[in-house]
Amino acid sequence: MGGVDDERAARLRLSQLVEPGDERLGAELAKSSGSEVLARIEANDRTLRGVEHYRARLSLPLIDQGEAFSAHGGRYLVPGDGEWPTQLMALGAAAPWGLFVVGGELRAAAARSVAVVGARAATQYGVHVASELATDLAARGWAVVSGGAYGIDAAAHRGALASGGVTIAALAFGADVAYPRGHVSLFARLRDDGGVLVSEFPPGTTPTKPRFLLRNRIIAALTRGTVVVEAAHRSGALNTAAAARRLGRPVLVVPGPITSALSAGCHRLARGDEPARIVTDASEVIEEVGLIGELADRPDPLGRVRDALDPTSLRVLEGMPAETAISSADLAVRAGVDAAATGGIVLRLVVAGLVREVPSGFVRVPGAADTVLRRRSAE
Amino acid sequence: MGGVDDERAARLRLSQLVEPGDERLGAELAKSSGSEVLARIEANDRTLRGVEHYRARLSLPLIDQGEAFSAHGGRYLVPGDGEWPTQLMALGAAAPWGLFVVGGELRAAAARSVAVVGARAATQYGVHVASELATDLAARGWAVVSGGAYGIDAAAHRGALASGGVTIAALAFGADVAYPRGHVSLFARLRDDGGVLVSEFPPGTTPTKPRFLLRNRIIAALTRGTVVVEAAHRSGALNTAAAARRLGRPVLVVPGPITSALSAGCHRLARGDEPARIVTDASEVIEEVGLIGELADRPDPLGRVRDALDPTSLRVLEGMPAETAISSADLAVRAGVDAAATGGIVLRLVVAGLVREVPSGFVRVPGAADTVLRRRSAE
Repeated sequence: MGGVDDERAARLRLSQLVEPGDERLGAELAKSSGSEVLARIEANDRTLRGVEHYRARLSLPLIDQGEAFSAHGGRYLVPGDGEWPTQLMALGAAAPWGLFVVGGELRAAAARSVAVVGARAATQYGVHVASELATDLAARGWAVVSGGAYGIDAAAHRGALASGGVTIAALAFGADVAYPRGHVSLFARLRDDGGVLVSEFPPGTTPTKPRFLLRNRIIAALTRGTVVVEAAHRSGALNTAAAARRLGRPVLVVPGPITSALSAGCHRLARGDEPARIVTDASEVIEEVGLIGELADRPDPLGRVRDALDPTSLRVLEGMPAETAISSADLAVRAGVDAAATGGIVLRLVVAGLVREVPSGFVRVPGAADTVLRRRSAE
Repeated sequence: MGGVDDERAARLRLSQLVEPGDERLGAELAKSSGSEVLARIEANDRTLRGVEHYRARLSLPLIDQGEAFSAHGGRYLVPGDGEWPTQLMALGAAAPWGLFVVGGELRAAAARSVAVVGARAATQYGVHVASELATDLAARGWAVVSGGAYGIDAAAHRGALASGGVTIAALAFGADVAYPRGHVSLFARLRDDGGVLVSEFPPGTTPTKPRFLLRNRIIAALTRGTVVVEAAHRSGALNTAAAARRLGRPVLVVPGPITSALSAGCHRLARGDEPARIVTDASEVIEEVGLIGELADRPDPLGRVRDALDPTSLRVLEGMPAETAISSADLAVRAGVDAAATGGIVLRLVVAGLVREVPSGFVRVPGAADTVLRRRSAE
């Protein structure tokens, strides 16, 4: 059955019609599927809130996956793909419904990752510190995620590459767009050296201010913590830090001279009501973010994904063997659930990232049902 | 009666015989008086623990108060003097039993004060920051307390003088000793411009490493909080910070470049188990230390001084009018306590800083009995 690929095609189309982070769409996708939502948009179903906005771009030609994108080794991932980074689920209704990816394997790259972000107009101090920090983090097996911009971002990517490590650039524009122009060779090097370019935006999408803000939640959600190296009082890096905090991920700051406007944002974070911890080297960063990996040791305000499943879905999920693939029909028997219902439930579990489709049927994604759901505090 | 002056003479002698901070001596003084303890030392009373050490310096000639010291406008203060800074009581048995003072009125100067301390081998950044901070603190009516050393200390004193403010140098040697030699004119200027030189050590005492450590607790106890501007990993300023923390006073640090060894001590304090707050300007310092002034608003782990008094002493204290002086005999009648006992209790209250002797009798020291006793945690 082509469940995941039908869903992929539908979500690819949705990526053209809807700006990322649309929580109304996210809520609809959680209740049904991309195919269903797309059909309702195309049918101008007025019961779908916001449908008139979603229809505004219906005249756009379909994205040609075979050419414009895959020429760069690009692909469109959806939840349910083996390469999908399930930690993005923490974004809830604002989670991306698909990601354009170029370069290395995203899930593996992001599994043990830290965001290193900061000002474009960085000082020499900031560039030096970001580069050293990224070099040392990468040398210890941590991927460095940043935004591909000038200044701190570029220093972070370059630092990780310098020690042969993995670095991920989460972009606010099409993954085929070179922005800034001066980073054409940085992006090419990153992609060719095992790094990853990732974007919610279809190929060709140009950057805008709101897209940078949307992108920031991806940086925060992919990683186990965010380090702000240099930030002025109104830096976009502070927005990434706020997104990380809402997700319950550690926000860390590098201190600097109090006489430097580029460190003022870092110091303000460190003096806030929920003070950011200051860090002065890679081992201190790892000390802070490493904890998040130990889910079992942490208090759990909202429970695990499995606790959020309805009893029938849970029976289907638990009926699935841990190691070997199973067909939907065999699973229905094993779980004692009606075969037609089982098909729908399995597809939903695939989309939720709990089950993966393989040629011989379906397998459970190890550990996915034990992912901790974190409370999203008000902004 | 010459109660306080007898006590002053005895404690002056004790300042020669015993190094400051001796908690055994402090405990004896709390139980009796300087005169009694001195008599026991002179009589070689073996029931006084450590008496053999205290006797080692008995051959020293008495300090000549009329000449060597008062030539500089110096005086020897003891608890009970109107000029005694009662906040030193928080040191408990380690509180100084007397202070050599040169310059302005110590109690008034120290009432609203902040310590600004740091490395001798400061960087230009540190010197600049300490100077600016002290200038702004002094301009807002806060006295700046430091240790008179090169580097951060000197910048703090000079900054306070620059805005016509009050600054106090707490010294680890005789207040008539110019150490370092290069600070002869700084000390003279400080003393002549309303500042204060203060020391537990008799005139002529030379600095030693242990004396610097003893001095640090005076800096911490005189002030409402300690700001460390620059400190290497083993800086003496960290010792002052630890003393402030034991007293429950805020420890604040100025961040700096993580590439600077002179900021490493500050950053370590900010990352400790009880993280020091970072501060980037004078208003942030005042925001942090200003709280301590609002005693009524703060939880109070050990209660107030009045709660520590035995019932008879409390009756004597409360029998004393708030505004006018009263004789010991009148007070005995008023409090309903035996006249002989009242005399002893009043003297003890004077030594504890709760009562002051004036020509016409005794007056209560306003607010002293409401001073909060803070828990001293283990070192």
